[in-house]
Amino acid sequence: MPSPSLGLDLGGTNIKAVLLTADGTVVQRLAAPTPPGGGAEAVTAALAAVGSALAAGRTLSGVGVAVPGVVDAARGVVRFLPNVPGEWDGRPLAAELGAALGAPAALLNDVRAATYGELRFGAGRGCSHFVMIAVGTGIGGGLVVDGDLYLGAGGHAGEVGHQVLDLHGPRCGCGGWGCAEALASGPALGAAAARTVAQGMTTALRAACGGQIGRLTPHLVAEVAAAGDPVAQELLDQEAERLGVLAGNLTVLLNPQRVVVGGGVAQAGAPLLEGIRRTMAARIGWYLRYAPVEVVPAALGEEAGALGAAAWAGRGQA
Amino acid sequence: MPSPSLGLDLGGTNIKAVLLTADGTVVQRLAAPTPPGGGAEAVTAALAAVGSALAAGRTLSGVGVAVPGVVDAARGVVRFLPNVPGEWDGRPLAAELGAALGAPAALLNDVRAATYGELRFGAGRGCSHFVMIAVGTGIGGGLVVDGDLYLGAGGHAGEVGHQVLDLHGPRCGCGGWGCAEALASGPALGAAAARTVAQGMTTALRAACGGQIGRLTPHLVAEVAAAGDPVAQELLDQEAERLGVLAGNLTVLLNPQRVVVGGGVAQAGAPLLEGIRRTMAARIGWYLRYAPVEVVPAALGEEAGALGAAAWAGRGQA
Repeated sequence: MPSPSLGLDLGGTNIKAVLLTADGTVVQRLAAPTPPGGGAEAVTAALAAVGSALAAGRTLSGVGVAVPGVVDAARGVVRFLPNVPGEWDGRPLAAELGAALGAPAALLNDVRAATYGELRFGAGRGCSHFVMIAVGTGIGGGLVVDGDLYLGAGGHAGEVGHQVLDLHGPRCGCGGWGCAEALASGPALGAAAARTVAQGMTTALRAACGGQIGRLTPHLVAEVAAAGDPVAQELLDQEAERLGVLAGNLTVLLNPQRVVVGGGVAQAGAPLLEGIRRTMAARIGWYLRYAPVEVVPAALGEEAGALGAAAWAGRGQA
Repeated sequence: MPSPSLGLDLGGTNIKAVLLTADGTVVQRLAAPTPPGGGAEAVTAALAAVGSALAAGRTLSGVGVAVPGVVDAARGVVRFLPNVPGEWDGRPLAAELGAALGAPAALLNDVRAATYGELRFGAGRGCSHFVMIAVGTGIGGGLVVDGDLYLGAGGHAGEVGHQVLDLHGPRCGCGGWGCAEALASGPALGAAAARTVAQGMTTALRAACGGQIGRLTPHLVAEVAAAGDPVAQELLDQEAERLGVLAGNLTVLLNPQRVVVGGGVAQAGAPLLEGIRRTMAARIGWYLRYAPVEVVPAALGEEAGALGAAAWAGRGQA
């Protein structure tokens, strides 16, 4: 029987891990907090410890490491991890974890790992071409082309969140302006909701957040909209329009069979997906006549990254 | 010696054709006007006649047909050709031309054909990953992935011109709003120039067009800008910014080695390319640190489509 592979998903607050057999069965899962102090050294040690605990002496076929930022996959080196404490640029994390866990390790951006997870086990199964849009604190993405994860010339393809949708739009954390992430991430939706309350609009959002606009999450906006508040509904419609334009841009460019929408904001559920489909029908109806596309929710939830990383490391074993 | 392949490029005003040996040498070229009357029947007959004249009795290995619109390549059927007279939807052009010319014929969108031409013989030679942006009356494009033309799940990938860059932008011919084509095509630039004159701005564009704003072409705007007119310069800067945002979106999404800029508007030349590069540095500098990209002019000019179509038809012969 071939050895299992290990998937580690490094997040700003948690490390998630799964042990996966070659046929795609999860043997075991584990999670632990990301050490808030101690820098990259402590985080690397925690990743190794979680991996060792999960492997429990088993021989591993490979280790996949999903990280929330930019990696140089060919060299196994981390480049830019804005949301994890520590100095990361240039750190040879693949070699370090490979040595600690006794198996070849590969680094992958976390949303690309989740995309690969959805391809193998989730909403992209059986699909040769799809795009993933993960809407949470940021907006990440991944592309599947000819049945495999598409990474581009240097391993950096898939930056769905920094597609400019509004030339004159607001500043984005990346340094640009009008990116999808600046317009439609969870914080962008929360900030738009906060503005309606701060500006004194008549909306049930005020009572829902107890007057504390910092509490206005996408989840709360969706709840208040579902209860019939027109201001919250308008915010959700705007969110769906922006995500629909993004999905439309990716569709006419790449002609995928599916657009998979994941991440925390996607938990707004069916009304959001319906709004995305409506926007696409209104704006790219001419294209959809020739090249139809399905808009579907992601299937794997928060485990997608660890699952995808494990499957990525175990490729060619099945 | 293997048989040559034939490339036909159907345009709204001309049909261009080349005969290509398997090693990529152009044996002969020919052009003829696209029949303005007589509909699809007459245009099909003209394509066959140009092809026969060029083949001159030689056996062909294949015929590639570049058409300015949407095709169903798998079935060899034309779907939507807005700029060629006649009823085209459903016409089995590949079978018709294949029968007339005695060789298997394949249909391809014209800018995708030009992209393939640039890959084989032009600005994309030796490149495994590049994107082409062709800026003329419309904006078309093509994608090269892993050294081959990328067409997506159903053959319709590469619609670079209908990337929305401005959520609230002007109406586009496709039915959407704020598309790159509506913002930065040749007519969009001409219209922006016309507005400066119509609004009475102090600009040398007025004299340059003899007061007839319909004469304000991109070429004329570039000339007036080069002569030092600040209004014309601002128009060119705006054009470069919009194309730079488009090129930036494609770059962070696909991580290409090159962005190839072609089409009539690209003849504004070095200042336009420099403006595109400047915009990309300002907006996606964070990304270019990890994934550098070259912005280069297309190399094949107006023959790119016919050359690419011929090479597409002759694939696997070399």
